[in-house]
Amino acid sequence: MSALPFSKISASLNVLLAAIGLLTVAALTTPDIAGQTRLVLEGLLASVWAAYVLQLIETLFMQRSREARGRALETTVDVLAVLVPVIALLFVRGRDQSLYCAIWLLKPLRGSTFFQLLGRVLTKEARNLIGVTSIFGIVLFGAALAAYIIERDVQPDKFGSIPLAMWWAVVTLSTTGYGDEIPQSFAGRVLAGLVMMSGIGIFALWAGILATGFYEEVRRQDFVRNWQLVAAVPLFEKLGSTALIEIVRALRPRVVPAGAIICRKGETGDQMFFIAEGRVSVATPNPVELGPGSFFGEMALISGEPRSATVSAATEVSLLSLYSSDFQMLSSSSPEIADIIRKTALERRGATPKA
Amino acid sequence: MSALPFSKISASLNVLLAAIGLLTVAALTTPDIAGQTRLVLEGLLASVWAAYVLQLIETLFMQRSREARGRALETTVDVLAVLVPVIALLFVRGRDQSLYCAIWLLKPLRGSTFFQLLGRVLTKEARNLIGVTSIFGIVLFGAALAAYIIERDVQPDKFGSIPLAMWWAVVTLSTTGYGDEIPQSFAGRVLAGLVMMSGIGIFALWAGILATGFYEEVRRQDFVRNWQLVAAVPLFEKLGSTALIEIVRALRPRVVPAGAIICRKGETGDQMFFIAEGRVSVATPNPVELGPGSFFGEMALISGEPRSATVSAATEVSLLSLYSSDFQMLSSSSPEIADIIRKTALERRGATPKA
Amino acid sequence: MSALPFSKISASLNVLLAAIGLLTVAALTTPDIAGQTRLVLEGLLASVWAAYVLQLIETLFMQRSREARGRALETTVDVLAVLVPVIALLFVRGRDQSLYCAIWLLKPLRGSTFFQLLGRVLTKEARNLIGVTSIFGIVLFGAALAAYIIERDVQPDKFGSIPLAMWWAVVTLSTTGYGDEIPQSFAGRVLAGLVMMSGIGIFALWAGILATGFYEEVRRQDFVRNWQLVAAVPLFEKLGSTALIEIVRALRPRVVPAGAIICRKGETGDQMFFIAEGRVSVATPNPVELGPGSFFGEMALISGEPRSATVSAATEVSLLSLYSSDFQMLSSSSPEIADIIRKTALERRGATPKA
Amino acid sequence: MSALPFSKISASLNVLLAAIGLLTVAALTTPDIAGQTRLVLEGLLASVWAAYVLQLIETLFMQRSREARGRALETTVDVLAVLVPVIALLFVRGRDQSLYCAIWLLKPLRGSTFFQLLGRVLTKEARNLIGVTSIFGIVLFGAALAAYIIERDVQPDKFGSIPLAMWWAVVTLSTTGYGDEIPQSFAGRVLAGLVMMSGIGIFALWAGILATGFYEEVRRQDFVRNWQLVAAVPLFEKLGSTALIEIVRALRPRVVPAGAIICRKGETGDQMFFIAEGRVSVATPNPVELGPGSFFGEMALISGEPRSATVSAATEVSLLSLYSSDFQMLSSSSPEIADIIRKTALERRGATPKA
Repeated sequence: MSALPFSKISASLNVLLAAIGLLTVAALTTPDIAGQTRLVLEGLLASVWAAYVLQLIETLFMQRSREARGRALETTVDVLAVLVPVIALLFVRGRDQSLYCAIWLLKPLRGSTFFQLLGRVLTKEARNLIGVTSIFGIVLFGAALAAYIIERDVQPDKFGSIPLAMWWAVVTLSTTGYGDEIPQSFAGRVLAGLVMMSGIGIFALWAGILATGFYEEVRRQDFVRNWQLVAAVPLFEKLGSTALIEIVRALRPRVVPAGAIICRKGETGDQMFFIAEGRVSVATPNPVELGPGSFFGEMALISGEPRSATVSAATEVSLLSLYSSDFQMLSSSSPEIADIIRKTALERRGATPKA
Repeated sequence: MSALPFSKISASLNVLLAAIGLLTVAALTTPDIAGQTRLVLEGLLASVWAAYVLQLIETLFMQRSREARGRALETTVDVLAVLVPVIALLFVRGRDQSLYCAIWLLKPLRGSTFFQLLGRVLTKEARNLIGVTSIFGIVLFGAALAAYIIERDVQPDKFGSIPLAMWWAVVTLSTTGYGDEIPQSFAGRVLAGLVMMSGIGIFALWAGILATGFYEEVRRQDFVRNWQLVAAVPLFEKLGSTALIEIVRALRPRVVPAGAIICRKGETGDQMFFIAEGRVSVATPNPVELGPGSFFGEMALISGEPRSATVSAATEVSLLSLYSSDFQMLSSSSPEIADIIRKTALERRGATPKA
Repeated sequence: MSALPFSKISASLNVLLAAIGLLTVAALTTPDIAGQTRLVLEGLLASVWAAYVLQLIETLFMQRSREARGRALETTVDVLAVLVPVIALLFVRGRDQSLYCAIWLLKPLRGSTFFQLLGRVLTKEARNLIGVTSIFGIVLFGAALAAYIIERDVQPDKFGSIPLAMWWAVVTLSTTGYGDEIPQSFAGRVLAGLVMMSGIGIFALWAGILATGFYEEVRRQDFVRNWQLVAAVPLFEKLGSTALIEIVRALRPRVVPAGAIICRKGETGDQMFFIAEGRVSVATPNPVELGPGSFFGEMALISGEPRSATVSAATEVSLLSLYSSDFQMLSSSSPEIADIIRKTALERRGATPKA
Repeated sequence: MSALPFSKISASLNVLLAAIGLLTVAALTTPDIAGQTRLVLEGLLASVWAAYVLQLIETLFMQRSREARGRALETTVDVLAVLVPVIALLFVRGRDQSLYCAIWLLKPLRGSTFFQLLGRVLTKEARNLIGVTSIFGIVLFGAALAAYIIERDVQPDKFGSIPLAMWWAVVTLSTTGYGDEIPQSFAGRVLAGLVMMSGIGIFALWAGILATGFYEEVRRQDFVRNWQLVAAVPLFEKLGSTALIEIVRALRPRVVPAGAIICRKGETGDQMFFIAEGRVSVATPNPVELGPGSFFGEMALISGEPRSATVSAATEVSLLSLYSSDFQMLSSSSPEIADIIRKTALERRGATPKA
């Protein structure tokens, strides 16, 4: 995986590349760009394409791994991103050639966890979303019909047919309000007011459904992930199931890349850390390494003293932070765990200074 | 129920028919449609009407069933959908004849569970919604009054009376902003800024009330439905009430029509399935049928191997999915259930390959 | 309390009166209203005022009751509603006389539980709302400053000073978009895009804070009210505290005025009722009255038969509804309560037919 | 801390100073301000600057305290607020001098707990917010591309390049709707309708993520703070952990400054108070002081009588309010605590009248 330098194209680099490519496409359509500037932009487009060729090769090599299914979508996106511009170059004539690079809009979908999450929410809430959309449709048609009947004689050029009135209705119902079609009669204005209010209501329903669907899904994912991380810390095995759920909610997971500094000597700290995966190294006179299940930084919570040593990640490390205030809550609900943490702190202080 | 082919007009077909009918009505109002096109469109309208006649007959036949009450609304809608266009054809003259087909806007209400849900939410939150609406009214009138006083001398044609100022106020309060009436004085603009902010605030209240009302109702319905499905799986009888609530929240219900494939041999899987109602058939060399209370697909969660057989629905089947991550949570909170699942997996592997 | 007929002016009548009064005020400001119409409108205004005088007298009589504090606000509103128009009539000249009736905007505040709720939410969330409002201010000023710098030379008449630019900023940040001031330069348009996105973000924060504040307060009030009602039903005394909380969440409270019919013989029913306060009468051959702590309508849930008798409210009655699906949940979590309900149903069927 | 009078510049005074300064900056840019008025405004600007110099000195003195880290940001803001205007005065010529005071926009960030909260929410939800923002980007580019293709021949001056079309897209997607660029073709209007609906959907996602992130963080902070306050009241030590969580949720924290009156003799009361920190004095004939862990105001809940004495804060005091309705809930779930409260009420009534 580390053989090809390109394998590290993470989601963010991916987004950046697509953004550069698409902005170049946009710039190329402006009429006043010509000559040298045009050449530079086309060169840029070619570079992005080249990067995508490299990425495609990388993806094809990776595909032998067992997660073949997830890769299928990625490979399709990668192949399209490389092929479509080539086909356009060969078969399309004129200024529209570069527009086909818009296929790169698909690139950010690749490897994004957010779109999976969104997909799950939309699937789960599909029934309700369709319901609200059909209300939107009913109100839209109803409003257009009413506006047509009310305004067709006053402004025949703007409300002279239902499709024309529908344009007004959608602009008003979404509270966009271009202002190109405005009812003039009294009845038309009362109708417009009602349509605006309905628009806000429908919008609110939409927002409510998406918001709560999202919330439930995210909370569920967080809970499951924290649960798995907490299960990797032996100290928490002694907790009863209610306390365990409390601690799962209180801990904040955090992934730190290898080499990064987690806390610095002399800083004041308001959290302690549990190691779920990976190893950290403590920069004491005799450097120490701590592995999964260990914790550090507890002194800051108990005595309020500044960190006594700098701790950095020896490998990529998965940490669970416990904030000062949550530690106090843990202390009162599970005194035995707080005792273990306090005892360890005392031992460490006697032996070798710790963060 | 399977005697008449029309009995299967589901909600979605219903929506489609109404959409076709209403779009045709809309098209018929555009002035440039004439001659042949007009005839085609009128034919389309007649076809939709004919479909509705069939549906009405179907509904009348069905009505003998005991759910007479729920049917009353359906029958009314169906009768109106057929009668109103006929009456319009007989008694109305000129271009407005087809407009009466707008009665078909009521059709999607028929048999939709979403509108029932929405009705319940609106009933429950009525008091708060009325409260916010009256705040809307108060702010609207107050803003119109203030704008009238401030701007009546500057722009008498636009703010010369409270009703005129009210039009500005509703356009601004809903943040639609047509731009046909804009305060010009300094005080008027400060007022406009405040009105916009109030508009956002009122909108937020509305959204909040609808969103939370919706959330509560949906969560309640989901919980109750899952509870009933879980109660149909004997394996879960051994769970204590706290664990039962956890599992009710973790399982995802899913209805699969007869004949559909649930999982395919060779795919990687991230979920296992419990059967709440109906039967599935497992396409092993000696095909097996599994009934309510059984589970399948557990191998994918335990060993991570691809599905060992294709499973399809023998009848319409009600499934509960358990995702990989939730399975691990279940394993740590209810080890005995996880053991039963693992044992079954081993037995099945020894005997006949399973999905 | 029943001495004066006016004591029954409920919140909704209150709102209606205020609406009539204020719409009349609005109508009186339109220039084309004169002569007879004007007289009629002024008569209407006088009638509303007279109704408010009666209400004031009523309020002053009622004030001797012990809830003196809550009445203080009501009395102030009532006195102002009567006095301000009179003062305006005596001391103000010309067309603005009737505008002072706008004081009636305060009337709906009187006796509304919604405004108390809103007040509590705003107080509780004050710190966060002020925080978001100050972000709004910071972004508003920052956007105006940037637009001023970018556009002042391009459109000096529209962006020539920060106050002018601020008008653009508030119209854009609230996504109202009148369209009277639009940035023309490329930088100005990028800025506008960012301002629109910030506007949506700030709006979302506002909505989020209000929505969640509202949700928490409403849920708390509902829970407390249901808890008190459930405590009045002896049957639920046997429930453990977890089951009690479940049932408190499942039951739906409902107040029925004296004489109203609660369920009708022959209807199918999907809920049973517990009486928390008041009495109902069951229209069996030998009519029966049931008092607090009793339940009825359980047959519909157990056997699915239509209601066997019409039940109406003998006094104003406070009911708790239990829906069919929740009954099944209760049955599995608290079998003993379900048993009692079933036994009662059997006894009643043996003795006298019940709803 | 009480040595320098300026140490009490609280967050609100801070916001007020910044508002005055910035509004003065805004006023100075209007062309019609000259002569005397200009001098007055510049004097105002100088005064705000002087206040900030004092605040900077104060901050530097305070910095010796141990919370050095939190102070670092404050000091930077304070130094910039003083230095930037001076540098502008020395090196910038002309009308733009005063614009540099816009650095004061940073001032409200200083010492605000809301911005810390917001920062935490944004950090936690970063991944989802980036996801929605990239959807926004994708839809924006896609809409602009489609509008460009559809409308470029109809309105080449408005949709003649993708950047131009993008301006339309962002104005429409955010439902701002300036109305300067409006699609004219049928296809363009259908596209516009879809873009508006997408805009509402994206907005809803944004609102949902921010709202729920906010809700979770606020609820967590509230819970932790209440937990610590409840832990300071010995009476609650007897509660089991479930009841403790209930009471933590029911109590409302409130900080009262020294000298303020908490409840007044003769008022009716709907809450009682527990003292978490500080002392109150009860104005009975023989004035009494109550300290942490005590409670008062219970008589109002038990007998419904008006407050029997005025209670005021002797020091700054941290109170927990228990509302009447929550007290009844506490009574039924933890009768022993309710008993203690009732007994104390009786003893106090026997001895010395209490609030």
